[in-house]
Order: sequence, then C-alpha cells, then structure tokens
Amino acid sequence: MPRIVVDAMGSDDHPTPDVQGSVDAARAYGVEIILVGDEAKIGPALAAASPGRLPIRIVHAPEMLTMEDKGEDLAFKARHKDAKNSMAVGMDLVKKGEADAFVTAGNTGAAMVTALFRLGRIRGVERPGLAPIFPTASGFCVVLDIGANPDCKPENLLQFAILGSVYAEKVRGVKHPKVGLVSNGEEEGKGNELVKAATPLLKQAKINYFGNVEGKEVIGGSVDVAVTDGFTGNVMLKSSEAVAKMLVDKIRETIKGGSLLTKIGGLLVKPALGSIKKVLDPSEQGAAPLLGINGLVFIGHGRSNAFAIQNAIRVANDAVEANVIGAMKSAIEENLKG
Amino acid sequence: MPRIVVDAMGSDDHPTPDVQGSVDAARAYGVEIILVGDEAKIGPALAAASPGRLPIRIVHAPEMLTMEDKGEDLAFKARHKDAKNSMAVGMDLVKKGEADAFVTAGNTGAAMVTALFRLGRIRGVERPGLAPIFPTASGFCVVLDIGANPDCKPENLLQFAILGSVYAEKVRGVKHPKVGLVSNGEEEGKGNELVKAATPLLKQAKINYFGNVEGKEVIGGSVDVAVTDGFTGNVMLKSSEAVAKMLVDKIRETIKGGSLLTKIGGLLVKPALGSIKKVLDPSEQGAAPLLGINGLVFIGHGRSNAFAIQNAIRVANDAVEANVIGAMKSAIEENLKG
Repeated sequence: MPRIVVDAMGSDDHPTPDVQGSVDAARAYGVEIILVGDEAKIGPALAAASPGRLPIRIVHAPEMLTMEDKGEDLAFKARHKDAKNSMAVGMDLVKKGEADAFVTAGNTGAAMVTALFRLGRIRGVERPGLAPIFPTASGFCVVLDIGANPDCKPENLLQFAILGSVYAEKVRGVKHPKVGLVSNGEEEGKGNELVKAATPLLKQAKINYFGNVEGKEVIGGSVDVAVTDGFTGNVMLKSSEAVAKMLVDKIRETIKGGSLLTKIGGLLVKPALGSIKKVLDPSEQGAAPLLGINGLVFIGHGRSNAFAIQNAIRVANDAVEANVIGAMKSAIEENLKG
Repeated sequence: MPRIVVDAMGSDDHPTPDVQGSVDAARAYGVEIILVGDEAKIGPALAAASPGRLPIRIVHAPEMLTMEDKGEDLAFKARHKDAKNSMAVGMDLVKKGEADAFVTAGNTGAAMVTALFRLGRIRGVERPGLAPIFPTASGFCVVLDIGANPDCKPENLLQFAILGSVYAEKVRGVKHPKVGLVSNGEEEGKGNELVKAATPLLKQAKINYFGNVEGKEVIGGSVDVAVTDGFTGNVMLKSSEAVAKMLVDKIRETIKGGSLLTKIGGLLVKPALGSIKKVLDPSEQGAAPLLGINGLVFIGHGRSNAFAIQNAIRVANDAVEANVIGAMKSAIEENLKG
C-alpha cells in the first residue's frame, strides 16, 4: 500500500482541507497517509474528518515554513539537520524510505528548496522543474518548467523534456508522448537564443520530439509535453488562467445583465458551463510534481481545498505505483550515454 | 485630412479585403486612402467596392513581399533603393511626407524589416516593438513587444515602456497610463535576469510605473501597458488566444451535445455569447502599431477581413491625429536626458 506524506500545514486554511482531503483520499484510493505538522492542530481536524479505521497517522512537526521564509533564512531552515518544520520532517520520511511521496499545498519556493536539500536531484539532472498539467482541447499537456527556474540553460530544457516525457508516459499513460518546445513560432529556426540552442539537443534526445510549439499547439492538444524555461512557463500558465477566468466572468455578467430570455437561457446552459469549469479547475489536478528530485514531491496551490488535496494524493499514488522515479533515472542515464 | 497608405497586397485574400476595408474606412472616418500594389488587381477590386467619390487613389507597386521572403533576400528587397514591392513603395510615401501612416496585413517580419530600412528608428530607440491591444476585464492593455525581438536587453524594455505609455495616453486616451513589467510573480525581486535588470531602469523612467505584473494583472486590467521581451509576449498572446478559442469551442460543443433544454438555452444565450466573442475578436483592433519606428506603421493579421482592415485604418487615423510620433520622440528624449 503506497504511503503518502501530507503536509498538514500546507494550504492557506490548514490544517482542515489538508486533513479532510487526506481522509477522503485514504478512503477513495486505499493509500496510507502520514500527516506531518503540529499535532495539537491536526488531532482535532482529523477527529472532525471521521477517519474511522483508515490507515492515517500523525508525525509531529512543531514548525512550518511560510511565504515569509526566503533567501538565506529559508535555506537554513530547509537544510538544517534537525529542522522541525513540516516540509523537512515530511520529506525526511521519504528520504528514509518510510514513505513513498510527499504532498504539500504550502509555499512553492520553500518546498523546492527543501526538496533540493533533503532529497537531492536525480543524477544527471541539474535543475528540477515544476510540471503542472494544462487542460487542452483533447485532454492535457504536461508543461515544465513553470516557475522553479526563471533562467535556464539549453541542457535544463533537455532534462525537462526527458523528465516530462517519462512522467506523461508512466503516470498519464501516454505511449510515446510527443514533446514540444515552446517558441514564438512553430517553424524551426523561430525562437530566442535559448530555444535555438536547445533545439539540437532535443532532436538528438531519445524522446518523441515534435518541434516548436505555440499556444495553439499546446492548448490545442498537439503535444503531450511542452518544455520551456520557468519564466515563460509561468507567464503562460498565469495568462491562460487569467483569460479563462475573464471569459467565464464575462459570460456570467453578460447573462446576468441580459434580457429575461437570456437569463432563462443562462439557467438552461448552466450545467453545460459547469462541466467546462471543471476542465479548467486546477483542483481537479490537485498538485504539480517537482520533476528531477530524487523522490516524489507534489506541490499544490495554497488555495487548495479538500478536493484538491484528495486529487493531489491520487496523482502522487499513481506516480508511486508507476515507479516513475526509477523510470526517470533510467531515461536520464540512457540519454547521458548518448 | 489624414492620408493613410494601405498595402493592398497584404492580407491572405488580397486585394479584396484590403480594398473593401479601405473603402469602408474612407467612408466611415473621412480619411484619404492610398492603395499600393498591383494596379491590375486593385483596379477591379476597387470598382467592385463602389468607392463613389471617396478620396482613394492607387499607387502602382508591381511586386509584393510574402512569407517566403526572409533573411538576406528579404533584407535586399526591403532596403533596395528602387524596390518595387508594395511595402517599400508604401512606406516611402510616408517617408517623403506624402502620407501619414502605413497599414499592412502582410508578413510581419517583412513589414518590420522594411520599416527599419526605409523609415528608420526614433532617435534613442534601439529596437522597435510590436504592440497589440489585449482585451482585459475592464478594457484593454497595450502589450509590447510581442514578437519583433525574441531576445531583449533591459534598455529595450525601458524604451518599450516609454513608447507604450505614450501610445496608451495619446492614442487610447488613458491619463497617466500604468505600466507593468511582465514577470513570474508580482512581488518585486521575482523575475528572470532580464526583468531584474530592467526594474531599476523602469523605476527611474518618467512613466507611471506599476511594478511586476502576472497574467491576472494584465488580463484583469490593473495596468494599461505591459512590457516584456518579444519571446514572452508572443507566447503570452498565442496562449491567451488559444485558451479563449478552446473555451468558446468547448462551450459550443457542450451545448450542441447537450439535452434539448440545453440546446434551447444555447439559442437564448447566443446573442450574449456573441458580444463576448466580439471582445476577443482581433479584427476589432485591426492591427498593431510598430512602436519606435520613425513613422506610423500598423501590422494586421494575415487573416484580416475587410472589417479588420477598416479598424486598422481607424486606429492609424487616431494615431495620426494624436501626433503620436512627435510625442514619442519627446518622451524618449526627455528620458534620455535622465
């Protein structure tokens, strides 16, 4: 039975959504849950979530990392041997082999730094990449990096391509995932210096390389993995979310401000629009894997609710069962050999 | 009366949309139109568009630049003293003071290179930026650069900020336009090397600098101008368009595949959804100015229809009447003085 560590101090409203989502996941997917964080706070939340006899236990971690933790101070807390914050304690359980994956809805930067110090990187990976799932016209696309590395080297993009490809294949079940390189034009030769330098590396890699992609290929579903530097990926993600939100808001406003017939129409299409909102809902995916770390780490949004946490645990469970870390290690090694 | 040169060989379906849009614009806005291109093709199209006594004349240019023109070959055609292509001939009219602005729906790269060679840059501007209008929750945002310069220096972003600010103020009528710097986080200090290096320059500039912005600020309408390198801007634009398209398609599909009641609801909300489509329709804006060129150049989409061309001419006319080139020169000079 996969053992998933959940940072009970992660979400903005911790520990309630984190604990409730854990209970729901234990019930739904048959996973064992280890809740890390302040026992005094987790205890009552767990009791309130009616865990029954589900395999859920608490590991006490009196401290927590917050949005205030950055720079030197964060590095100290992330690396300290006897760190008592929930991220460090939780990841140590994975490191020691007492758990299989770590899930948090806490500070992304803190989780990344802690993961780097405590779990380290897969051999041959210079920088881990944060890899959320974008909804597309035909399904989904794994996009990385979306924020861990604002400035990248061509080699980083190559490593992202390999990691993303393995993830799409093993965890998302795509055969020979098509890997695209995000650029300002689909034709080869279009791109900034980074894209131009990365292109020959991606062409030589043992992946199903598709070529340059624009938004229409990524969102249109032409590729299964889209590789980019963390700055561009982050801007892409945030803009896409903002456009989707604006559209949904505008539709709602227009119907609300419309004629009586429009309002009636609005009521009739409401369920249909609801199913679209579901496609766009980040809590459906729950959390993004931090690929390249030598251990499974999933980072969710601070605004995660119980459903998002449950989904994050589902995805973590899938990754454990697929032994994706082993597969990523082999793929990176194979590509290093050339 | 402003005199607008229109590249009649610009759009994918040239010359019909280009000519029809010109006639419509001459009628709607009281501008004089000079159609450049192959006279033998423009003549019949113009006759078919019933120009009556509108002030429209044709200047013959037997050649045209296409998507095939690139690199050395393009540079030669763009710079040659006796170039006979419609872009060169049209821009020369602006250069000689025989026209006030140039509008094309042709190859963006060709238009940029031709503009650089024939009209040159405003003194103090190193690279011109292509600056389309993004629809936002509360109106619009001028975003630049979206493709002219995939790799930028911090000074380029400073110049884009000044140019975009003047354009938003003079042409779009925004008082003290708020200028944001696109980044992977709104907090100061977030960003790639380029953003970090540009920040102090933007802070010192004589603009209403807002700080870092993400998609939610740009699309949400927090700023009037968003500055970024051409690679990121292009990815942002293409992703935003793709997400909007996916959503509209999914709504249509879901309603079409829904129950009878859903379909009836769909019919009732159709007009309301139409008004949203209008917000997202690039032809409403018609064309994007190439800011930093010493002359007014507007570049529209190849798929422009007559309505898009008409709107492009409207925007060009607004820019002429606002004397935006003069204002940009002063603003750049003032900022150069420090």
